[in-house]
Amino acid sequence: MTALTPSVTDPHAAHQARRDLLRVHIATLGADAAVIGDLVNVRYLTGFTGSNAALLVSASAEGDRICTDGRYVTQVGEQVPDVEAVIGRDCPGTLLDLVAPSGPTVAVEEHALTVTAWRALTERTEGAQPPVRLVALGRAVENLRMVKDDGEVELLRQACQAADVALATIIERGVIAPGQTERQVARSLEWEMYACGADDISFETIVAAGANSAVPHHRPTDAILATGDFVKIDFGAVVGGYHSDMTRTYVLGSAADWQHEIYELVAAAQAAGRAALSPDAPVVEVDAAARSVIDDAGYGENYVHGLGHGVGLEIHEAPGIGKLGTGTLPCGAAVTVEPGVYLPGRGGVRIEDTLVVRAGAPELLTTTDKTFSVI
Amino acid sequence: MTALTPSVTDPHAAHQARRDLLRVHIATLGADAAVIGDLVNVRYLTGFTGSNAALLVSASAEGDRICTDGRYVTQVGEQVPDVEAVIGRDCPGTLLDLVAPSGPTVAVEEHALTVTAWRALTERTEGAQPPVRLVALGRAVENLRMVKDDGEVELLRQACQAADVALATIIERGVIAPGQTERQVARSLEWEMYACGADDISFETIVAAGANSAVPHHRPTDAILATGDFVKIDFGAVVGGYHSDMTRTYVLGSAADWQHEIYELVAAAQAAGRAALSPDAPVVEVDAAARSVIDDAGYGENYVHGLGHGVGLEIHEAPGIGKLGTGTLPCGAAVTVEPGVYLPGRGGVRIEDTLVVRAGAPELLTTTDKTFSVI
Repeated sequence: MTALTPSVTDPHAAHQARRDLLRVHIATLGADAAVIGDLVNVRYLTGFTGSNAALLVSASAEGDRICTDGRYVTQVGEQVPDVEAVIGRDCPGTLLDLVAPSGPTVAVEEHALTVTAWRALTERTEGAQPPVRLVALGRAVENLRMVKDDGEVELLRQACQAADVALATIIERGVIAPGQTERQVARSLEWEMYACGADDISFETIVAAGANSAVPHHRPTDAILATGDFVKIDFGAVVGGYHSDMTRTYVLGSAADWQHEIYELVAAAQAAGRAALSPDAPVVEVDAAARSVIDDAGYGENYVHGLGHGVGLEIHEAPGIGKLGTGTLPCGAAVTVEPGVYLPGRGGVRIEDTLVVRAGAPELLTTTDKTFSVI
Repeated sequence: MTALTPSVTDPHAAHQARRDLLRVHIATLGADAAVIGDLVNVRYLTGFTGSNAALLVSASAEGDRICTDGRYVTQVGEQVPDVEAVIGRDCPGTLLDLVAPSGPTVAVEEHALTVTAWRALTERTEGAQPPVRLVALGRAVENLRMVKDDGEVELLRQACQAADVALATIIERGVIAPGQTERQVARSLEWEMYACGADDISFETIVAAGANSAVPHHRPTDAILATGDFVKIDFGAVVGGYHSDMTRTYVLGSAADWQHEIYELVAAAQAAGRAALSPDAPVVEVDAAARSVIDDAGYGENYVHGLGHGVGLEIHEAPGIGKLGTGTLPCGAAVTVEPGVYLPGRGGVRIEDTLVVRAGAPELLTTTDKTFSVI
């Protein structure tokens, strides 16, 4: 493992640095403060992991406050010693009341705020003198979250490693074998990820055998693995809140020519997608780099999803990498590259890694071998 | 197990019946249709489990449509054969476009719709002739979901049974014992729930030993269980989408008098709470029935949360049972009863069952013994 960076050993400094970056954005909007209501964003900016919270970030360096309810009095003090805590149940409303007397302009996360909650905030400040103005913050925090600092990359690396080791362990133990069920393979993999230090699984593990492998997001069933099946396994581990995401597809016992053929096609597309990851690359071009390989082979209609997505505190976050994506890849973004080809009724292949966009070549966090394997 | 009811063997009939009840509400609002965007509500009304969907429910019996994206073409056909599917990425917008030409009044779930999504819908129909009007549906579907039909109760029963059997299994195997870590106990319990037929776990399993048991929502750590510890275990299983929720607290090896005392206090409060569950009981009175037992013993400040909550397709749903709750318990509601007493630095006790509100006595779905136990 790499040496720990300052932001891992001093998470509070990292949180403070993120709030300071947000402050710049708040000032740019002409706002006096922002009320952050999205819990993942609150965690990113403070480290707080409770299930009810909001954060007030002031345009000036003073006046940040975190609000949570009575269940989390102890926890907020431990996790966020550097921001003054306020206790209340309606967290965004409580924080808005704090700043209302000065008649501020307050930016809110309209994409994370329900219409009902927004109406309540609006009514709360209606007729206030001096007036309170609510404006849209936009996805400012999600945009900051795209670029991972060293501490975040270290957690992603640990999460990817837990998944890599877990998969190697169950393969070595012969768990992915004819006679086992999809569910048994999924549960064994999850057990091993926990044994490797995962705090949680990233999402419901996908194990899809035989014709089920042609369903992109198949849920594991009691279907029994059989010789000649494709077995597609899409899974991940969470470490310190950070999600890994990987897919491998194997053939059991002996492979048919068509299986080898579509596997190599997807592998070539995945390699092309990885090679296209570079700072400032438009996401549509990264998607096209992989997609054109599959299109050119005549399987374009069998590749029914985007190439990848950002990963971090959420399993799906910015940037999205697909045909309809917008923008470019920032240096330091953590993303997946996961093309697939699905032949309904026969089987499908997906190959997916988690990587970090770097100058030069991307940094590969998923280290499991991906050459065509019959197991 | 009880005999299967028609709604289990014919889920489509149950979904149709729920949509018909919603139609009555839509007509009452004076609306022509509702666009349901909350995924849990879409599942409740159709059985669809994909991660992107919206449902159009028409005030008349004709015209219901479900929208999802290209990844789910096969799945929506299999899960929802009785509602015509439309494929699109922006599901609420796609459905709104379908009905817009007639200039309808469309009810939307403002509590589940973000301000950003709502603005997009509003802009989409701006200037339309005849005009399209968006109104608030309110929590109509959540209110329907409070009352469980026989099929839902059967799934909850199976979910509760998976949790009961899993706990009994790990106790029998000696997993809850000095020397084990909180995490090991949590992972073993989850493994056994899956072995008992759980599709998923209800939420992150809480195993809290010793002083950690005084933290209401402690996450399992590598803390080692020791003789004399309280071990508080709060967990649940998901079967067919339905969540069970239970808590048991044990003492390891030998118990001190104070442990016995607060255990019996919480047990008495829990019994009082269960006894207060009856159709049409105001939720604040149900909460008070249990809380007064703890208050009278002088531990009121150590009971820092509500008495319980509804359970079903979500782990927390209506009705909430707490000091600040509103409304009454409908007959057929599935709820938890879970008082606790937490002594910071020493330890805490919570005892929780899942039950169904019935005329006469509530139906207890959690069957694990809850007499004071030293294991």
